[in-house]
Amino acid sequence: MIKVNFKSNNKEVYCEKGENLLEVARKAGIFIDAPCNGNVSCGKCKVKLLRGNVDTEKTLHIKDEEWEQGYILACNTKVVEDIEIEIPSKLSSSMHGMKIEGSDKKKDKEIFDRAKKIIEENDFEFKTNIVKSYIELEEPTLDDNICDIDRLERHVRNNLGFNEIDFTMELLRKTPVALREKDFKVTITYVKKKNKLTILNIEPGNTEGELYGVAIDIGTTSVVVCLVNLYTKEVIDKASSGNAQIKYGADVIHRIIYSTKKNGLDELNKAVVDDTINSLLESIYTKNNIEKDNVVSLVVAGNTTMSSLFLGVHSDYLRQEPFIPAFLKSPRLIGKDIGLNVNNSAYVYLAPSVASYVGGDITAGVLSAGIWASEENVLFVDLGTNGEIVFGNKDYMMSCACSAGPAFEGGGISCGMRASGGAIEKVNIDKETLKPELTIIGDGEPVGICGSGIIDLICKMLLTGIIDRRGKMHRDIDNDRVRFNEHEIGEYVLAFKEEYNIENDITVNEIDIDNFIRAKGAIYSGAATLIESLGMDFSVIDKMLIAGGIGNNLDIENAILIGLLPDIEREKFEYIGNSSLVGSYLTLISKDAKKKLQEIGNEMTYVELSVYPSYMDEFISACFLPHTNIEQFPTVKELLEG
Amino acid sequence: MIKVNFKSNNKEVYCEKGENLLEVARKAGIFIDAPCNGNVSCGKCKVKLLRGNVDTEKTLHIKDEEWEQGYILACNTKVVEDIEIEIPSKLSSSMHGMKIEGSDKKKDKEIFDRAKKIIEENDFEFKTNIVKSYIELEEPTLDDNICDIDRLERHVRNNLGFNEIDFTMELLRKTPVALREKDFKVTITYVKKKNKLTILNIEPGNTEGELYGVAIDIGTTSVVVCLVNLYTKEVIDKASSGNAQIKYGADVIHRIIYSTKKNGLDELNKAVVDDTINSLLESIYTKNNIEKDNVVSLVVAGNTTMSSLFLGVHSDYLRQEPFIPAFLKSPRLIGKDIGLNVNNSAYVYLAPSVASYVGGDITAGVLSAGIWASEENVLFVDLGTNGEIVFGNKDYMMSCACSAGPAFEGGGISCGMRASGGAIEKVNIDKETLKPELTIIGDGEPVGICGSGIIDLICKMLLTGIIDRRGKMHRDIDNDRVRFNEHEIGEYVLAFKEEYNIENDITVNEIDIDNFIRAKGAIYSGAATLIESLGMDFSVIDKMLIAGGIGNNLDIENAILIGLLPDIEREKFEYIGNSSLVGSYLTLISKDAKKKLQEIGNEMTYVELSVYPSYMDEFISACFLPHTNIEQFPTVKELLEG
Repeated sequence: MIKVNFKSNNKEVYCEKGENLLEVARKAGIFIDAPCNGNVSCGKCKVKLLRGNVDTEKTLHIKDEEWEQGYILACNTKVVEDIEIEIPSKLSSSMHGMKIEGSDKKKDKEIFDRAKKIIEENDFEFKTNIVKSYIELEEPTLDDNICDIDRLERHVRNNLGFNEIDFTMELLRKTPVALREKDFKVTITYVKKKNKLTILNIEPGNTEGELYGVAIDIGTTSVVVCLVNLYTKEVIDKASSGNAQIKYGADVIHRIIYSTKKNGLDELNKAVVDDTINSLLESIYTKNNIEKDNVVSLVVAGNTTMSSLFLGVHSDYLRQEPFIPAFLKSPRLIGKDIGLNVNNSAYVYLAPSVASYVGGDITAGVLSAGIWASEENVLFVDLGTNGEIVFGNKDYMMSCACSAGPAFEGGGISCGMRASGGAIEKVNIDKETLKPELTIIGDGEPVGICGSGIIDLICKMLLTGIIDRRGKMHRDIDNDRVRFNEHEIGEYVLAFKEEYNIENDITVNEIDIDNFIRAKGAIYSGAATLIESLGMDFSVIDKMLIAGGIGNNLDIENAILIGLLPDIEREKFEYIGNSSLVGSYLTLISKDAKKKLQEIGNEMTYVELSVYPSYMDEFISACFLPHTNIEQFPTVKELLEG
Repeated sequence: MIKVNFKSNNKEVYCEKGENLLEVARKAGIFIDAPCNGNVSCGKCKVKLLRGNVDTEKTLHIKDEEWEQGYILACNTKVVEDIEIEIPSKLSSSMHGMKIEGSDKKKDKEIFDRAKKIIEENDFEFKTNIVKSYIELEEPTLDDNICDIDRLERHVRNNLGFNEIDFTMELLRKTPVALREKDFKVTITYVKKKNKLTILNIEPGNTEGELYGVAIDIGTTSVVVCLVNLYTKEVIDKASSGNAQIKYGADVIHRIIYSTKKNGLDELNKAVVDDTINSLLESIYTKNNIEKDNVVSLVVAGNTTMSSLFLGVHSDYLRQEPFIPAFLKSPRLIGKDIGLNVNNSAYVYLAPSVASYVGGDITAGVLSAGIWASEENVLFVDLGTNGEIVFGNKDYMMSCACSAGPAFEGGGISCGMRASGGAIEKVNIDKETLKPELTIIGDGEPVGICGSGIIDLICKMLLTGIIDRRGKMHRDIDNDRVRFNEHEIGEYVLAFKEEYNIENDITVNEIDIDNFIRAKGAIYSGAATLIESLGMDFSVIDKMLIAGGIGNNLDIENAILIGLLPDIEREKFEYIGNSSLVGSYLTLISKDAKKKLQEIGNEMTYVELSVYPSYMDEFISACFLPHTNIEQFPTVKELLEG
């Protein structure tokens, strides 16, 4: 056996001679970012060899200087003797580490309030069917010695008017002690269903005010949980982190492939449930002093693959023709079924999917976007790892999906990060000096760049002539912020380490830009193909809603300039944030909204883009700034050429 | 840290100086029999010190010869330095080891057939509501690409006439692969409920004949599982073992006390579910080549404490006045809730209890005994660790419980064992030579003695004058089979080691006899008090049914002679075996029987013996052979005195 010492993780691992270093790390539960899942194509799994020799090769992703310092790609390395490894920490923790949101509470509130208005405008009730009641039972005696459960049922029958109670084994296990802690005075949490009362929780004493729910958005790249007071319907707190499944691949296809390996499905399931969601819940409970047993309702939205892996369901048929999901609608689930860090009897509801590549994140997003109630034609675009697009109004809704990759969420970009503290979310570049002016989320040093920042950056690099319309850097620029490595790959320095006293320069290179252009090309061409499939064009759009966790400072003008969004009237645009999360929130606080969400799932039509021969052409044309056919972007044409 | 080497278990354990040796063994999962739970009162936890010194004391339970050899009581020993320990293996494994029954299949069949007759005589249907159907679905295409679950539902709607299907996450997890293994030809196992069909299992191909259930009797001392073909209703196999909870105490009171310790409840739950039931199921599946997912229904009967610990429910209030059980009726349960080694969605039904000390074993026993349908007065006695007694007929049923201890099941007797291979089940003693003639279950050497054997033995020892009516050995017998140790405790040798080429002599001593007399005294006085409480006496009994796993050769005449059973007409007696198991079996194979079981649970009256001042007097009078007042046993009086 050979010993691998992951020094940065304080962990020694044993493996066989010849084992792949990335696999060794994964088996030991050590996170090394590998969006391409070990294909030696993304270059993200760069680690530093501190001691010993390995069987590896220098690749395009490793600069001469790095090679000399011992940097290697873990996925391209075989272990042949005892070694010591260091995993560069800063970016990976900012990309995947946990964060309790806080700084943007005001913007958040606007977005949630906008959603609540939709409930009100459609006369939906802000009402769930979960209730708490404080009750005082008679204490048992030798003469009145019925069992605890019968005593509870007798009280409910005599005082709350239900004939029968229903309860889980979890409740049964708590009942004897809970009843006696405060002399048979308890608070029960229950759901009313016709003549029957299902008890979810029992607590000693009066805890009537404490009743919580959680809305969760499971993105391929990021996961957000949102704690809600079920009495006031207020959002109490929000927390987000990278989806810990990332170590098994950056996109859904790579995850599905990994899920077919031995224990792969279990590992993916554990990664999202335990390592991501349960950790987020734990920290949000601690911060807000919440008892997990008082969290009795969850609504979870994710794309079809994320939903499937969340339940640990075999997912391989999602990617094999004829692309059949195992399920679209959620089975009846309780917290314990999934091992969630909530009340074991908590109701867990998954937003319904529409097809293999239009999932619950989109039905929830459409719910919060209000397309189903709109007289106007709405184009809804969710900028995620999977880009999903919905077009329609109250009479019909068409949807499609395209694989954008994680660029909008900071993934696939060498210095990319989620829209959290330290993220550059806005960039201006001085035309003369090429010096950038950065707007950073939170106070402090820049750590990386988030989606809205990348959009700004590429736009400004184009306008200042740093890059051309192909996204390539002009070779004749004489400025220390524009430099080329030995492979002739150009990069632009957003922040010198000396400027901010940070560990490394923050740069964006031509590979990053290429990744981004393909992402925005996928979105634009997908939207165009969807609308064309109806015999229409972008001119029919009355309203365009942009969703996704790209940051709170999406500059629509810049997004059009680079060809992400169509060149239509600016007042038609609105950025609605993480609409999947907001839709989950609405579903959590309103039975009527939940009913509507189910209807959306049933009624939305799915359009398979790949059957449109024009789609591939559209995509290739769109992989340009803003587009090969600049006539589609008249205002950009004027700006660039005029 | 100090090292304890349990040599017989090949296990080294570390502990703190001063720790109790029994506790050290328990923590390490090493079984040392300790019925008294470490009170230094039963002497069963005798182990041999091979190396090192300990802090211990010689007690009554250790003979001089043993003390010299290094025998100590684990519960009475503190570890002070590194030691090596040997645990005597033979008896403990025969008492608690697992056994697939087989030898007594014929007698078993008689007992189960007797029970089936009750179903027939009462016009109950042999019918459960679990069905299997082989179905052939249409294979998905790009044009017919509905999800797997919807495809299943569509087929069920079109072909089986149900509007809706209901399923668990477990089923969802199996569905995608099961459907595709044999081209969308599958067999589903389901329960029909009104317009809804709940699917429990899905299997590739046609497996329509394979559908099984399990009836389980959880005794305080022994556990029996019984595999049943749900199509033919035939018993396929039976297996039994000691209840692994025994290491935490021999009776329910000691178990409850242990359950209040840290992790105690979990340990007790795991002991019965994992270590006992799941192991039995595993071996019975292997032997009969059964797929665990085809086991879809379970009926479990146990006393109130066993039921409570089986579900992992806090049980301490069962033993504290006013003696309140957490529940009497089973909540809705599936296999997964309890972690049983069956289909995760299998229905698990617990026989209802009546009170803290009359449990599901008695309601199930009464079901199989048929008291509820009887015109005659029936006295039903279950000879278990808890002795329960029911008196009544089709119009009323009264029940009570008394703590008999495990003697009838071979516990509490130094050479006692369950009624399985190697057990002495019948004894005759030659009046002249005092040499015993043994009938042994199975072929082979004697290992110990079971309940029916002890009854015979004590009877014969009384008749041959080895013991007197107090159960004490006559001091003046000159025979090598009767001997006294240095504490003046007499013992009778059932088998010299030389006779059978066994490791040790098999003996019964005065302490064993005393334990047994108290057990039989508890039963007799309990029955007498129950009937007296109704203003009647034993003469009103038309039928007397004896239940319990004491062996298949209960000699009624001998049982009367020692005063276990009342001295009434012999033709009124019937031994009906493990009636709790048989009742579970009936409940498993007939919906009507299940309904009747619930009625029995609701309608049976519980009589608390301890509130009858006469009970204690009755008990003390009954701790004699056959009774202090021999006038209550006229035929015995004649035999002994006449």
